[in-house]
Amino acid sequence: MGHTVAHKLIASHLVSGAMTPGEEIGIRIDQTLTQDATGTLVMQELEAIGLDQARTQASVQYVDHNLLQADEKNAEDHVFLESACRRFGLWFSKAGNGVSHPTHMQRFGVPGATMVGSDSHTCAAGSLGMLAVGVGGLEAALAIAGRPLHIRMPEIWGVRLTGELPPWTSAKDVILEMLRRHSVQGGVNRIIEYHGPGVATLSAMDRHVIANMGAELGATTTVFPSDAAVREFLRSEEREDDFVPLTADDDAEYDVTETIDLSTIEPLIAMPSAPDNVVPVRDVAGTEVAQVVVGSSANPGLRDYAIVAAMLRGRQANREVSLDINPSSRQILADMTRMGATIDLITAGARLHQTGCLGCIGMGQAPAVGQNSLRTFPRNFPGRSGTREDSVWLCSPETAAATALTGVITDPRDAADGLGLTYPRIELPERSSVNRAMVTPPLPAEEGRRQALVKGPNISSLPDFPPLPDTIAAPVLLKVGDDVSTDEISPAGAAALPFRSNIPRLAEFTFTRIDDTYPSRAHQVADTTGHIVVGGANYGQGSSREHAAITPRYLGLRAVIAKTYARIHWQNLANFGILALEFTDLTDYDRVARGDTLAVEDLTNVLRSGDRELEVHNTTRGERYRVRHSLSPRQVTMVLAGGQIPLLARDHRDT
Amino acid sequence: MGHTVAHKLIASHLVSGAMTPGEEIGIRIDQTLTQDATGTLVMQELEAIGLDQARTQASVQYVDHNLLQADEKNAEDHVFLESACRRFGLWFSKAGNGVSHPTHMQRFGVPGATMVGSDSHTCAAGSLGMLAVGVGGLEAALAIAGRPLHIRMPEIWGVRLTGELPPWTSAKDVILEMLRRHSVQGGVNRIIEYHGPGVATLSAMDRHVIANMGAELGATTTVFPSDAAVREFLRSEEREDDFVPLTADDDAEYDVTETIDLSTIEPLIAMPSAPDNVVPVRDVAGTEVAQVVVGSSANPGLRDYAIVAAMLRGRQANREVSLDINPSSRQILADMTRMGATIDLITAGARLHQTGCLGCIGMGQAPAVGQNSLRTFPRNFPGRSGTREDSVWLCSPETAAATALTGVITDPRDAADGLGLTYPRIELPERSSVNRAMVTPPLPAEEGRRQALVKGPNISSLPDFPPLPDTIAAPVLLKVGDDVSTDEISPAGAAALPFRSNIPRLAEFTFTRIDDTYPSRAHQVADTTGHIVVGGANYGQGSSREHAAITPRYLGLRAVIAKTYARIHWQNLANFGILALEFTDLTDYDRVARGDTLAVEDLTNVLRSGDRELEVHNTTRGERYRVRHSLSPRQVTMVLAGGQIPLLARDHRDT
Repeated sequence: MGHTVAHKLIASHLVSGAMTPGEEIGIRIDQTLTQDATGTLVMQELEAIGLDQARTQASVQYVDHNLLQADEKNAEDHVFLESACRRFGLWFSKAGNGVSHPTHMQRFGVPGATMVGSDSHTCAAGSLGMLAVGVGGLEAALAIAGRPLHIRMPEIWGVRLTGELPPWTSAKDVILEMLRRHSVQGGVNRIIEYHGPGVATLSAMDRHVIANMGAELGATTTVFPSDAAVREFLRSEEREDDFVPLTADDDAEYDVTETIDLSTIEPLIAMPSAPDNVVPVRDVAGTEVAQVVVGSSANPGLRDYAIVAAMLRGRQANREVSLDINPSSRQILADMTRMGATIDLITAGARLHQTGCLGCIGMGQAPAVGQNSLRTFPRNFPGRSGTREDSVWLCSPETAAATALTGVITDPRDAADGLGLTYPRIELPERSSVNRAMVTPPLPAEEGRRQALVKGPNISSLPDFPPLPDTIAAPVLLKVGDDVSTDEISPAGAAALPFRSNIPRLAEFTFTRIDDTYPSRAHQVADTTGHIVVGGANYGQGSSREHAAITPRYLGLRAVIAKTYARIHWQNLANFGILALEFTDLTDYDRVARGDTLAVEDLTNVLRSGDRELEVHNTTRGERYRVRHSLSPRQVTMVLAGGQIPLLARDHRDT
Repeated sequence: MGHTVAHKLIASHLVSGAMTPGEEIGIRIDQTLTQDATGTLVMQELEAIGLDQARTQASVQYVDHNLLQADEKNAEDHVFLESACRRFGLWFSKAGNGVSHPTHMQRFGVPGATMVGSDSHTCAAGSLGMLAVGVGGLEAALAIAGRPLHIRMPEIWGVRLTGELPPWTSAKDVILEMLRRHSVQGGVNRIIEYHGPGVATLSAMDRHVIANMGAELGATTTVFPSDAAVREFLRSEEREDDFVPLTADDDAEYDVTETIDLSTIEPLIAMPSAPDNVVPVRDVAGTEVAQVVVGSSANPGLRDYAIVAAMLRGRQANREVSLDINPSSRQILADMTRMGATIDLITAGARLHQTGCLGCIGMGQAPAVGQNSLRTFPRNFPGRSGTREDSVWLCSPETAAATALTGVITDPRDAADGLGLTYPRIELPERSSVNRAMVTPPLPAEEGRRQALVKGPNISSLPDFPPLPDTIAAPVLLKVGDDVSTDEISPAGAAALPFRSNIPRLAEFTFTRIDDTYPSRAHQVADTTGHIVVGGANYGQGSSREHAAITPRYLGLRAVIAKTYARIHWQNLANFGILALEFTDLTDYDRVARGDTLAVEDLTNVLRSGDRELEVHNTTRGERYRVRHSLSPRQVTMVLAGGQIPLLARDHRDT
């Protein structure tokens, strides 16, 4: 049996496990990508680990999310990140260079390489025949420290493309078609691999559009082959030497198969407020729109802006529409400007914003409540725009441009009739506006060791994570019900978010949506007994934020006893050295009250014994409960050590 | 005796008073300018007045301040303002068109006209031979309603310019020289009029730079003659027909005189944190800089960007510097792009921001604490950048560009030596990128009357302002000491500012920096007796914000009794129908306590009698105090009516 591109990428980097779907495998990581919103914590983790120098082929820190700088905190983060890059030997891409995904593709993408990134759209790099996986901050830190990525081997989902896209449609309509067919759950535990004759009709940047929004299908990642289009892309970036061909064997077999005939694709749109809420544009044509935004990592290519500019050339955007342009990178903006697209857009009435993620992650361009905003972005979850009760639609640049002209949702094919538009043939330059000065290379290791981390007043170090005590005897500070989310444990929002690099300050928000006395009560016992939280079912559901483990840990949380856990939060608890226990008899949950003192003894021996059950002694009530844990031997070692970070710190001291 | 330009402008618009310095005059107003940060309140005032249609030649509402749109509130303001323009017959310049001052100059400025604007830099229009005065929101509303502007006749300060600026200096250095000589108090109660042979060497946009920062000298306004340079400017804007010559008579006499020999000007810089903290750039050369920002209404012209681009062409900005470009208007950005300046800036490493005020009013680009930021802006008051403990310097575009190249404060003349720069001769296009589609004209009056105001959830109407009761008998809810500022009465800041268009919500912040029980206690008696505040000396010092009168009025404040008042707040109290009284015997201040009930009787007769003294009866203590007021007969009528707004509303019902 022949190999798929995904199999070849994994096989060439496999350090543990077998490529059987569902089995845990370890993959060597060549590159990492971090952005500023998640990167400050990654750098604090590297500091806590005691990393000397990055052990990857290239680790690149981007500044693309928090660019508004409405107060000093964004700029402090940027300064800190730059200093961390000097210290740890990372590349630094400063504010204004652009969104990580297209910028990485332009400057660093190498066919055949592996990458993790602390951003869910890291998978976009699959456009160049890379295996690129979005992960949490600590996993990115581990990769920078040279550790393999551990995942369960996914199924390989072969999507065969045939035919060619008709005029007025583009790559965005292909991925919207995938979402229409399969929903946001469709790609879970799968790698999507595009193949077949239709692939050759798509440029590398077109493939980026499709690979990027594989994240919206829930896929582990997306891969495309590395072929002539990839070589052409690398040539335009003056990096043809980095080209390596990588294609599936002719007899490659996929775990799941699918076919899309590109010639049947029509303009599609995701309605509010989910990326899989997809219908043909025609079905919703005529809906009034107040805002049209072009840009983001979901449509980052020069072509995506150039076609909008060509459609608007010599015309005026509808007066009732705010037409917002987010150039995805400095290079793309330079290309746009050189080819005349920028002047066409300005003249047509566009607002040209600085390069970066901006509106795509709710950093600016928030619409008014109830007004329709049509965007070429990857996501339209409720409130992501920054507006409560927003109404965000996702579409292609062609549909966006047609709508900007008319002020109502418009199928670009109809615009061709109604507005006298002919389908623009875009001539892209053979060479991009490559500027190697824009990303700062790592310092030599010796010089890096002499660099200090520059921390503004709002940037802390990670707290210490002492080992798990052999006996926990601590009060139940909080007892919560079912389905408590990480948002309730560590809130986001305008009040808390600015402190994401400041664990002591952020900790003051912990659990305050449930009980605002929790932080002060926790402080009182933090240095003596610490404390315990009792939870219901599905404890820690929701976002993957590590802060929901770090901030209660900082406040002295030693153990959680719950009915059941949400998967990612359970992992985060282990990663940060908090013992996660489950009631074996769910009725015991009802026997415990806030204020009770619970004791668990002889933890080192019990956890190392391989026995999954333990006894908890309620010394307040004189009762005993059976509880269990699900930690692997590797995780037991980690939790006993106080978590992943002290364990790694020990390793780094030893080497 | 011949007339100055200022005298001619005033004489041609005089409706009351005589042009003797210090005497109150009334001036007919031809145009108004409002921006979004102050404009929402102006539109609410027009609504409360019951205005049918604007009675000026042109009233233009700009959206240039609050463009970040981090949540829905900015966009809601924009929607509201646009609807108010439709309703009241104003021009609407939407977000992205640019900063009000240069945009107004480009599209609406007419030599010989008068203008008020609810923005302190309105005076920039003096560059075209206009009389343009920055005022509070209510005065702007009055002007839109056709009322004259009442001010005290200022002194006319003739500044004679001779010679010509040397290379590497520009208009910004001229106004910095004025600030170096005269400080931020130097222009108080004066109109600055530039004249002499040096004026002809300055373009209209150069004059804008100088007129704009007349605000920093505290001047009433600045005027330049309307001459060949103004004609040339209007020609480039395709409005040569709007040209009217306006120059001072040869024998014009000025109240105060001054001379600047332009040929002696050298590059100057205002150090942190005041615009008059001016030294030669050479004196501070070598200081490390983290950020350089080019733009704002203080350097808005194409030349200002073009010279920076020319200096950076083919070079890279220093890697440690964030070079931020704020284009001042869409038209300027189009011109920059057409002439190649935009691509030069991008290639050199600049971050190109959307057009608008942005960093100049702390809306973005805030630097990190303690890092030097060098800006071509008009102001560097502490914290204005959005950063606590900021360190902002003000300079010319030439100094900014030289500094961006080196990363340390650099005299551009030294950069010429050190970096091999030759002084760029900028060829500006003969015709600007005029786009008449960008500003929406007023609707015909009949159509306007059918338009509704569109108010998002965060936009209220102004509250009702009932007439002053004939007897006030109300408790002293608060007694404060000397020098209470409007910031303590109605706080700004991130928590309160978003509610600037929502008086009921904003009112909840009133006096809370002094006593956070004030709003709730005021509510308890708002509908019955209302309440009184007792103040010390200099009550209401600080900013001119009208909210410091409106929000306590909304909470039921009927009268203030203080030792003395700050001038603007005293006017605002009268404007919003609050009786401002002063103790005649200052020791009576000590006899009154919070909680006492004070009564003042027969107010209509007493105030109308012309007698300035009244009696206050402390019914709690059985004491009587003599107090006085300083209201003019016009103001008495206004206060009795409940303030300016109900008075005007009555007039508008009657006409």
